[in-house]
Amino acid sequence: MVGDDPKIVIVGGGFGGLWAASALANKPVSVTLIDRKNHHVFQPLLYQVATSVLSPGEIAQPLRRILNDAKNVDVLLGEVTDFDKENSAVKLEDGSKVEYDYLIVAAGARHSYFGHNDWETSAPGLKTLEDAVEMRRRILLAFELAERQAYLEGEHRPLNFVVVGGGPTGVELAGAIADIARQALAKDFKKIDTRKTKVILFEGSDRVLGTFTPDLTDSAKKQLEDLGVEVRLNSFVTDIAPGKVKVGEDWIECDVVLWATGVAASPLGTRLVAETDKAGRVFVEPDLSLKDHKNIFVIGDMASIRQEDGTPVPGVSPAAMQMGTATAKNILAEIKGKPRTKFKYVDKGSMATIGRSKAIADVFGMKLTGFVAWMFWLFLHVFFLIGFRNRFAVIFEWFWAYLTRERSARLITGDAAELRNALLFLEGEEAVKILDERSERNKAGRSAT
Amino acid sequence: MVGDDPKIVIVGGGFGGLWAASALANKPVSVTLIDRKNHHVFQPLLYQVATSVLSPGEIAQPLRRILNDAKNVDVLLGEVTDFDKENSAVKLEDGSKVEYDYLIVAAGARHSYFGHNDWETSAPGLKTLEDAVEMRRRILLAFELAERQAYLEGEHRPLNFVVVGGGPTGVELAGAIADIARQALAKDFKKIDTRKTKVILFEGSDRVLGTFTPDLTDSAKKQLEDLGVEVRLNSFVTDIAPGKVKVGEDWIECDVVLWATGVAASPLGTRLVAETDKAGRVFVEPDLSLKDHKNIFVIGDMASIRQEDGTPVPGVSPAAMQMGTATAKNILAEIKGKPRTKFKYVDKGSMATIGRSKAIADVFGMKLTGFVAWMFWLFLHVFFLIGFRNRFAVIFEWFWAYLTRERSARLITGDAAELRNALLFLEGEEAVKILDERSERNKAGRSAT
Repeated sequence: MVGDDPKIVIVGGGFGGLWAASALANKPVSVTLIDRKNHHVFQPLLYQVATSVLSPGEIAQPLRRILNDAKNVDVLLGEVTDFDKENSAVKLEDGSKVEYDYLIVAAGARHSYFGHNDWETSAPGLKTLEDAVEMRRRILLAFELAERQAYLEGEHRPLNFVVVGGGPTGVELAGAIADIARQALAKDFKKIDTRKTKVILFEGSDRVLGTFTPDLTDSAKKQLEDLGVEVRLNSFVTDIAPGKVKVGEDWIECDVVLWATGVAASPLGTRLVAETDKAGRVFVEPDLSLKDHKNIFVIGDMASIRQEDGTPVPGVSPAAMQMGTATAKNILAEIKGKPRTKFKYVDKGSMATIGRSKAIADVFGMKLTGFVAWMFWLFLHVFFLIGFRNRFAVIFEWFWAYLTRERSARLITGDAAELRNALLFLEGEEAVKILDERSERNKAGRSAT
Repeated sequence: MVGDDPKIVIVGGGFGGLWAASALANKPVSVTLIDRKNHHVFQPLLYQVATSVLSPGEIAQPLRRILNDAKNVDVLLGEVTDFDKENSAVKLEDGSKVEYDYLIVAAGARHSYFGHNDWETSAPGLKTLEDAVEMRRRILLAFELAERQAYLEGEHRPLNFVVVGGGPTGVELAGAIADIARQALAKDFKKIDTRKTKVILFEGSDRVLGTFTPDLTDSAKKQLEDLGVEVRLNSFVTDIAPGKVKVGEDWIECDVVLWATGVAASPLGTRLVAETDKAGRVFVEPDLSLKDHKNIFVIGDMASIRQEDGTPVPGVSPAAMQMGTATAKNILAEIKGKPRTKFKYVDKGSMATIGRSKAIADVFGMKLTGFVAWMFWLFLHVFFLIGFRNRFAVIFEWFWAYLTRERSARLITGDAAELRNALLFLEGEEAVKILDERSERNKAGRSAT
């Protein structure tokens, strides 16, 4: 701690919190950044870990490494569980407290299951490195188990992947799975034809990537279909069970279901005893502070705030970064006796990737599709990847994957019981019966021999 | 399957099994390689994952990727649980069976706790990628928790790491931990001085790396001590509990205990109903086959066989590779009606690394120490790393780590409860009390304010 400098506590090391900490680095304040994890994750590339293009280490960096030159910033591994606003302190999971003069809450969001949290086991979402590794495990295991079934029984159930939600994450996942099934995995599997893999993308509205203009979303749908993805619009998933999803009234069998829709802000919003919207986002003042608590700011995916034209600031990483920087500036201004300024979101355009050489972009007033949009996306993402080493490794991985159509991070890790569990999970509860029957059949066959 | 070609089943995709499969690739046989994991692990570099130099993906490669050009080799994800020698079949975990004409059992070994399997929770060993990630998690968490304690309480318990076993793995781990504590982590932690970390290596005999000549082991001990490792010879660990180890009659407190001694061959050896030695290794005939079962071979760390001079073939990766190749050749010879040949281990020398620029080597009749030995080790390990991509990535990581003294794969991953669990584990059972007391104290302090 640097003497009597104002003490700023930041909760969360995502884009919002990290950008705030960076803007406060080596200023006359004492900063503590608290996160449950020791690393910052570059979330826009999580889907590439889930589809085994990149390794976890390539899109994550230890927070204290990123901030090691900031002499006034402490990084603390801990889980904030509550706030003591009266005494200006945050509570950690073991009951200890950290006091603040200013508090910046940037704990982000997770996916929401619209009240069906029990679906999570069958249909994992994608917010953390652990989520991504779990998705990777399931995707790769599905192919392994189909190969195994084909080897042992001569044929295998059709390989079906379902992605729920046609936003950026859903589109990226669906495109990437279709891509690895048709390219990277095809020659490694000898008993199954991975190119026959079916990838179905369910979207509730009448368009994928609904935040883009209709001409771009039409292109996105076409690019997805070129990759072999079946896009089903106006389709609501109404139930999920092991090995199947219900769409409208029909149950559809599938090996893997991936969840890519719904947003629920961190439950810490409620702990602030503040007004929140339906997704749990905290309504904030124009300077991102909490009503009646001017020294508490809520930023990033946890904040609900509208732009001047009345539209909400979107829950995207550029918005979180801008909020982090703006909040840091307001605090530094106030310390110097200057007034705060209102937060103004600057939309620098948006882009979404669909697969190899496939993307859409709406940037600098230009609407781009296909290879050009993809190059834009590639360049920007590498540019923003934190840390030179990661940047270099990612470029190399991508270049390698592009040239060879290989996927290098194809590891299935997990505990020793993974296979048994996977068999149970992937083939659903009925499959347990099938498996048991098969093993009985085998035993019977053997003893008859 | 290729018509009526003899069917060879290989159990295990480690060095032995993989080398056998490679030698049988595109020969007039039908091969099935069965492994519980989808990947081959380059075990000699596991300790580098454990100490966050390399990422798991850099030392592992999917088995079916390695073997994808071998048209006659199927890779099957599955756990072999038993053998039906009468019907020449192996049993998988779900009861299904795979028949063979020739069987090669190469399921490797794990570390042994000399009858104290309950020590494993407190002192994990290093045989799989999961083991390595668990070690990495504990090592990094220990530093994080010390920093946290220093931040919250103004001081912290001393950081003690204990490594049990002075063989190659123990020496590598101890050296690497001392190295990261003194270099890579030093400037990232602001409240603690990681350079004061204590690393103690316990070895039961009177030398570390006991298979080398005394002058080399003396050098190894000196090189370890130069890195700051405390080497305690003739020291037997007699008990382990959370947060402490008992050596002789004394309990020594420590944050992390790593287990690097003892070998127990795969329990599949017993399933073969064959004679085994104390470590569970199967006694094999001079051609590595099982007595009375000429079509079953046991190779690698599972095999117990002596060289012509009476000394046992060591449980090292070159021996496993040589056994794999020799067995494949014997099978191919027999199919052509030619006689089998006895297995002869060719010792190409040995080397052990201790840390940056530190190693010992006994190769080509030369005894090397320090930087030269280390360069030798580096060159050979990169050369043998499977797959160009991995080779390239590893060279880059090493070069980067060497230049910058950074550690790039410093991620703590795990489930959400990791921190709480870690606190409980790392600080021992007494620490739970301490934690609870501290939280009570904090509450009391707060309410009095």
